[in-house]
Amino acid sequence: MTRTPLNHFNCSLARTADIIGDKWCLLILRDVMNGVRSFSKFQKNSGIARNILSDRLEHLVTHDILEKRRTRPGVERFHYYFTEQGKELAPILIAMLQWGDRWVFGEDQKPLELLDRDNQQPIQPIQILSSEGKSLLTDDIVPKPGPGADPTISQAF
Amino acid sequence: MTRTPLNHFNCSLARTADIIGDKWCLLILRDVMNGVRSFSKFQKNSGIARNILSDRLEHLVTHDILEKRRTRPGVERFHYYFTEQGKELAPILIAMLQWGDRWVFGEDQKPLELLDRDNQQPIQPIQILSSEGKSLLTDDIVPKPGPGADPTISQAF
Repeated sequence: MTRTPLNHFNCSLARTADIIGDKWCLLILRDVMNGVRSFSKFQKNSGIARNILSDRLEHLVTHDILEKRRTRPGVERFHYYFTEQGKELAPILIAMLQWGDRWVFGEDQKPLELLDRDNQQPIQPIQILSSEGKSLLTDDIVPKPGPGADPTISQAF
Repeated sequence: MTRTPLNHFNCSLARTADIIGDKWCLLILRDVMNGVRSFSKFQKNSGIARNILSDRLEHLVTHDILEKRRTRPGVERFHYYFTEQGKELAPILIAMLQWGDRWVFGEDQKPLELLDRDNQQPIQPIQILSSEGKSLLTDDIVPKPGPGADPTISQAF
């Protein structure tokens, strides 16, 4: 995968973007979230070229987002599953899906509905919440250097 | 920008990925979220080549994520601001930042802290909530075709 690595950045968002900030990776992760496991099904769903798909799967396995398991012992066929940290990408993926529902298709034309398995009701829109549980907008949020900030951070904005 | 457009996909996540699924776009959006406005500051913060930066800014303006305003009437200098739909990318960007805090740097080494302007307390981690307000994990969520699903959707997983 041809990429300029962003891993010199003292920024959590840049590091995450370095791992998943690629549309093919995002389509693969979408499929894994929806329960798709096999190379051929990823290929079919995204129409991605086989070499690019191999490359992105490899990338996601190397970065410990996906884990590759043999479908049967001794057989050279694999299925792909989220690792623990891969599973925790779900809020990002779902926020992306919901943004597209709202701004690309419109809520009443959304292609996919995500339900809570327990009560079969749609999940809530992903929100930014204050410590007191109040829903926040971008302008309500202030960035400040954290415990791991390097000196460039305070000059960055 | 060389990109295979994903806009034939009946999928909200694919469409969002088509617009912001690029690490340079994500770095620009991060900066805008943190209050950065000018070309030179974007350039300084991300070290991105000027031609790529121009291309990505143009892309984000074309897709109505950023809006370009003259710094003064009659002057060919611009500042960049979120549009309404651009502002609503914040949950995606913040979920990416928090994922990196947790899995790349570690919570106690996070470079940036995001505070609620009102009470100056850190915001909550972005979560997936059920209609009843219960925090959900990936395995608790079931996808089903929505009102705008085309026939390929039900075969996709």
